[in-house]
Amino acid sequence: MKRSVAILGATGIVGQRFFSLLSEHPWFDLRLVMASERSAGKIYAESVKWVLEKPLPKKAYELTIEQIDIDTITREKIDIAFTALPADAAKEIEPELARRGIVVVSNASSMRLEPDIPLLNPEVNADHIDVIEFQRRNRGWNGAIAKVPNCTTAILTLSLKPLHDEYGIKRVVVSTMQALSGAGLTGVPSMFILDNIIPYIEGEEEKVEAESRKILGTLKQGVIELNNSIAVSASCHRVMVLEGHSMAVFVELEKKPRDIEEIINVMETFKDNKIKGLGLPTAPEKPVVVRREVDRPQPRLDRLEGNGMSVVVGRIREDKVMNGIKYFALGHNTIRGAAGTGVLIAELLVKKDLA
Amino acid sequence: MKRSVAILGATGIVGQRFFSLLSEHPWFDLRLVMASERSAGKIYAESVKWVLEKPLPKKAYELTIEQIDIDTITREKIDIAFTALPADAAKEIEPELARRGIVVVSNASSMRLEPDIPLLNPEVNADHIDVIEFQRRNRGWNGAIAKVPNCTTAILTLSLKPLHDEYGIKRVVVSTMQALSGAGLTGVPSMFILDNIIPYIEGEEEKVEAESRKILGTLKQGVIELNNSIAVSASCHRVMVLEGHSMAVFVELEKKPRDIEEIINVMETFKDNKIKGLGLPTAPEKPVVVRREVDRPQPRLDRLEGNGMSVVVGRIREDKVMNGIKYFALGHNTIRGAAGTGVLIAELLVKKDLA
Amino acid sequence: MKRSVAILGATGIVGQRFFSLLSEHPWFDLRLVMASERSAGKIYAESVKWVLEKPLPKKAYELTIEQIDIDTITREKIDIAFTALPADAAKEIEPELARRGIVVVSNASSMRLEPDIPLLNPEVNADHIDVIEFQRRNRGWNGAIAKVPNCTTAILTLSLKPLHDEYGIKRVVVSTMQALSGAGLTGVPSMFILDNIIPYIEGEEEKVEAESRKILGTLKQGVIELNNSIAVSASCHRVMVLEGHSMAVFVELEKKPRDIEEIINVMETFKDNKIKGLGLPTAPEKPVVVRREVDRPQPRLDRLEGNGMSVVVGRIREDKVMNGIKYFALGHNTIRGAAGTGVLIAELLVKKDLA
Amino acid sequence: MKRSVAILGATGIVGQRFFSLLSEHPWFDLRLVMASERSAGKIYAESVKWVLEKPLPKKAYELTIEQIDIDTITREKIDIAFTALPADAAKEIEPELARRGIVVVSNASSMRLEPDIPLLNPEVNADHIDVIEFQRRNRGWNGAIAKVPNCTTAILTLSLKPLHDEYGIKRVVVSTMQALSGAGLTGVPSMFILDNIIPYIEGEEEKVEAESRKILGTLKQGVIELNNSIAVSASCHRVMVLEGHSMAVFVELEKKPRDIEEIINVMETFKDNKIKGLGLPTAPEKPVVVRREVDRPQPRLDRLEGNGMSVVVGRIREDKVMNGIKYFALGHNTIRGAAGTGVLIAELLVKKDLA
Repeated sequence: MKRSVAILGATGIVGQRFFSLLSEHPWFDLRLVMASERSAGKIYAESVKWVLEKPLPKKAYELTIEQIDIDTITREKIDIAFTALPADAAKEIEPELARRGIVVVSNASSMRLEPDIPLLNPEVNADHIDVIEFQRRNRGWNGAIAKVPNCTTAILTLSLKPLHDEYGIKRVVVSTMQALSGAGLTGVPSMFILDNIIPYIEGEEEKVEAESRKILGTLKQGVIELNNSIAVSASCHRVMVLEGHSMAVFVELEKKPRDIEEIINVMETFKDNKIKGLGLPTAPEKPVVVRREVDRPQPRLDRLEGNGMSVVVGRIREDKVMNGIKYFALGHNTIRGAAGTGVLIAELLVKKDLA
Repeated sequence: MKRSVAILGATGIVGQRFFSLLSEHPWFDLRLVMASERSAGKIYAESVKWVLEKPLPKKAYELTIEQIDIDTITREKIDIAFTALPADAAKEIEPELARRGIVVVSNASSMRLEPDIPLLNPEVNADHIDVIEFQRRNRGWNGAIAKVPNCTTAILTLSLKPLHDEYGIKRVVVSTMQALSGAGLTGVPSMFILDNIIPYIEGEEEKVEAESRKILGTLKQGVIELNNSIAVSASCHRVMVLEGHSMAVFVELEKKPRDIEEIINVMETFKDNKIKGLGLPTAPEKPVVVRREVDRPQPRLDRLEGNGMSVVVGRIREDKVMNGIKYFALGHNTIRGAAGTGVLIAELLVKKDLA
Repeated sequence: MKRSVAILGATGIVGQRFFSLLSEHPWFDLRLVMASERSAGKIYAESVKWVLEKPLPKKAYELTIEQIDIDTITREKIDIAFTALPADAAKEIEPELARRGIVVVSNASSMRLEPDIPLLNPEVNADHIDVIEFQRRNRGWNGAIAKVPNCTTAILTLSLKPLHDEYGIKRVVVSTMQALSGAGLTGVPSMFILDNIIPYIEGEEEKVEAESRKILGTLKQGVIELNNSIAVSASCHRVMVLEGHSMAVFVELEKKPRDIEEIINVMETFKDNKIKGLGLPTAPEKPVVVRREVDRPQPRLDRLEGNGMSVVVGRIREDKVMNGIKYFALGHNTIRGAAGTGVLIAELLVKKDLA
Repeated sequence: MKRSVAILGATGIVGQRFFSLLSEHPWFDLRLVMASERSAGKIYAESVKWVLEKPLPKKAYELTIEQIDIDTITREKIDIAFTALPADAAKEIEPELARRGIVVVSNASSMRLEPDIPLLNPEVNADHIDVIEFQRRNRGWNGAIAKVPNCTTAILTLSLKPLHDEYGIKRVVVSTMQALSGAGLTGVPSMFILDNIIPYIEGEEEKVEAESRKILGTLKQGVIELNNSIAVSASCHRVMVLEGHSMAVFVELEKKPRDIEEIINVMETFKDNKIKGLGLPTAPEKPVVVRREVDRPQPRLDRLEGNGMSVVVGRIREDKVMNGIKYFALGHNTIRGAAGTGVLIAELLVKKDLA
């Protein structure tokens, strides 16, 4: 039986991705779309400034936007709420929904670092989901909150995990080239970015550095312990690309790889993929795809690999300065880095009878 | 008395910058502009596809392009030849010109690493110019060859030098976002770069890694010795920016800076600037300019700082992972990274009675 | 039974579109891909610089590129040759293929205005196909040549035809904003177009003005007679858009429309669509789609309407100055304006037993 | 003696241009900069998001922004107020300032069509300034209001005027490609315009059509009479260009030009330039510059012609369909189309002892 789901913050760029992924999902029935007062009362198709590469789903002509209001999201109507809210609003709304028995899959940055809230990049740390039992107990919730990581972190950690398993990672230096969509539909005025780079994204570097340690951490005694053996230094920059976050990654390894072919094999095989074989509809066949051309991946050409759920890696080469390797990685920031991973988390929760 | 100068490869993007800088230079008289057969015989203004932000200089309507031919560049007519040739052509032509008594200031990548050829970023290593005495003796030349560094290397090493003097640099990890002009006028088709990044620039990373060691090296016993105490790892990427190479720089330091203010002061003061007080017309007042805003420098807004000869640095912050600092640097790739530094080198040669 | 087909000029942007459309076509079996000497001998996937929004078809890994050579394209192997050749090469090769019995569907501009060569925009003038009988007789060919119109002309005339049928068109003034892909994969260097417009496309305005009259003309006594009652004035400009030609169209009409709704109905109904009901696989359900939003169509959002085969029209409004109407039209220049229409023509030829 | 001037709305894109032009003006002393509450109390340099191609003027570090408040702009302190306000705010503030004796040079669209308010494109209609005498009498003002035309209209009418004088213009069809800056600093989100065109600018077409008739009209008996012998039809579109509005112009003429050379001469000579010889500092040497290359003007290369005050015209050719000519025109929308023309108007007012 399909779960009834809602989207809170349905008209922004992440909301649009949620809408696109959920409107024809085999396990979910999109019943409720909520947005700010300005959009409320209008048909979704008429209110949204749709910018995706796919045409508007049919459901967009059927669903009317409701104003965000906790009391409308009753347990009778809704099993899972996907949220793409600003952190401030999320901090108020999400715990209250969880208290009322709703399972919240949240893209907001609030609460991501709390030790009983799972921060899930499923292939990497689906096992962290077990913290929900403690979360419910601690907080007296019938529902739950599971968090989608920051977009850059989701892409980065997916590429790092197989390397960490095989070689042990000590230090990571990462320099990003992030897409416009990461700032939201209207976040970057064109006058500021045409023929330009903006070398600053508020809070981003701190998120990447802290969240990576949590995602690569371990569930112990009811809390997620950070992995403090890995240190990440990030420098984050906005470039003139619609979708797809790119990053140059420099990694210090504990163990020396035999050769580049071995590394490619380790990444593409992804032995410890935590959701392998679960049959989750949104899981990509290959979480990490390695390209061998000298000039790939490229965001415009590769961001939709694996329906936007794969991270694409290229230019893997030895890095003697770092005592390890360097490579270039790309992921779709509003799919793998936001709504796609949100839907994948919800699928995992259903599979594990947690939603 | 003004020196008579020529430009070889005058119609490309670096050639245009040379033309712009030399057509009204106080010390140089631009007498000869040379290009490929296709342009030869035409007035410069009519043949060039001018793309600079300044209008065409008047001289562009006066000078006729001649075909590149060594025999036309006689010592009687020309004192200094500025070259913006492909490496292959340069390898043939430049030594022959030097043999015939011409001083060649070359932007070509050929011969940059030969130990008796100075690779000059004047504020950093103007003293390397003394190798010319040995070069002449070794090679039996009356003229000389001095090389302009790779564009990224010129910008990077200028930002590193004051740090190295004060704190000692052990390791540098650099990730670049390079402008279109670095690939030449027609090097990057628009279909390949719009809404995209190209994560590869042939030979660039190797140049940055090797040339940095030479520029920061020392002249000893007639050769430039590489500075092997510094290790540089580069990852180079092309982005949709007209001019201005940006880079995220992560530096491991030997000595810990007191605080960010001290670092800013060290960079802006640039105590060991090797051309301080020489009165070279193209030398910027401040070789390194530090911005304190969180989101600067930006290529479109800052690339013309110091007439394009300053490197602009921002976002200096501690980097515990690297055991040092990280910052963002920007320089004008066809001025500081090519023609501007070429002209500055020529001014230095004149000042030192070497041209 | 499937027809065996070849693509000549398979690696350029139009060649890529042909490859994409033909590699899984229900009626055609792509057997031969030809390109210049530089690509010959390589697997298609390894030689092509693929830039389409869809991933490379599987066939790209199976077919080896052959060098363009008339003798390889025998009647035994190939029924239809799709050409995306430069006009000069096409002028030599295409008639010779037709002489040898091959049916050539050509995107090249050569011969487009010859009176016994059909210039086909199928919904508009599929009946012109009957001129092939005279073409064969005149020229002694067993094969035939059918031409795809210039990209802008194909889009423009499709939007004009229903208006012409209903109201009679006297004058058309059209100002275009054309995509980069119209100049080929490497035709527009990024340095020339970033933050810019190029207000000139060689030969384009003449093509639009002349070809429109032929497409809207009539087959009489074995030749296509131009429609000289319609006068078109074009001004053509290149803008920074990947794909999709946009145009502002001002039309003087003989008969006054009742209101805008009537015009929308006339365009969307397209009563005299010459291929209605033929069941051609590439024919769009609605050749003209009208959008009612004030700010549509937009190239990035609407160019793939009808799989790129529909022309999308918006902002239809009265124009008292022209004594008629004005509107904004958009079409996919390498699908509707090139390869897509080429495949549609081939389907029509098969349906009419001409190929 | 210098006039004391203020800028209302000083931090937006037009405000920045006013600041740049006025901070070192020979006749004006910039004393007061006003903006919204958010900026008030801050040094101009610290509040503005400066995007111009020139560095911030020194005055930007000296002047503190004050909140917009009519009572602060006393006649004792301020002679002329330059306004770059939204139309709503302007409608309230500007008449009140004029009543209090301030001369207002306004870029706002409010009141532009009122018959006793001059709408000035000085080379075209400086003589309309005499309506101020009637304006003062009608409205009981000691000050005055003079309006800057809509940006597109200013550029268009400057190119049309010499043609109208020589040949008589009956109809004009114009299709524009307008820069991002026309929508203000943050008006066009980058997600909406990258790889795209927006074919709609609210109110723009109506402004062009109506204001052109007023600018080309005549002052008679105390009011500006519209020139109803000229009919203009416009289609306006936003493209991905920072600054510089481009337009394809199709003109029906009463009298046939002898040849293209004659037209070039008519445009460049501009016989009836109404401010010729007045010595206004901001007046360009040549109001209309004609380029003879097939592919010029181009916005990035030509927008700063005449310090941004010249309109650049190219591709003049016969248009048989329109019974006249067609050409491509370019002007700097925030200089010629806004602040530059504003400053030129103020200079004219000073020269005529009206301010």
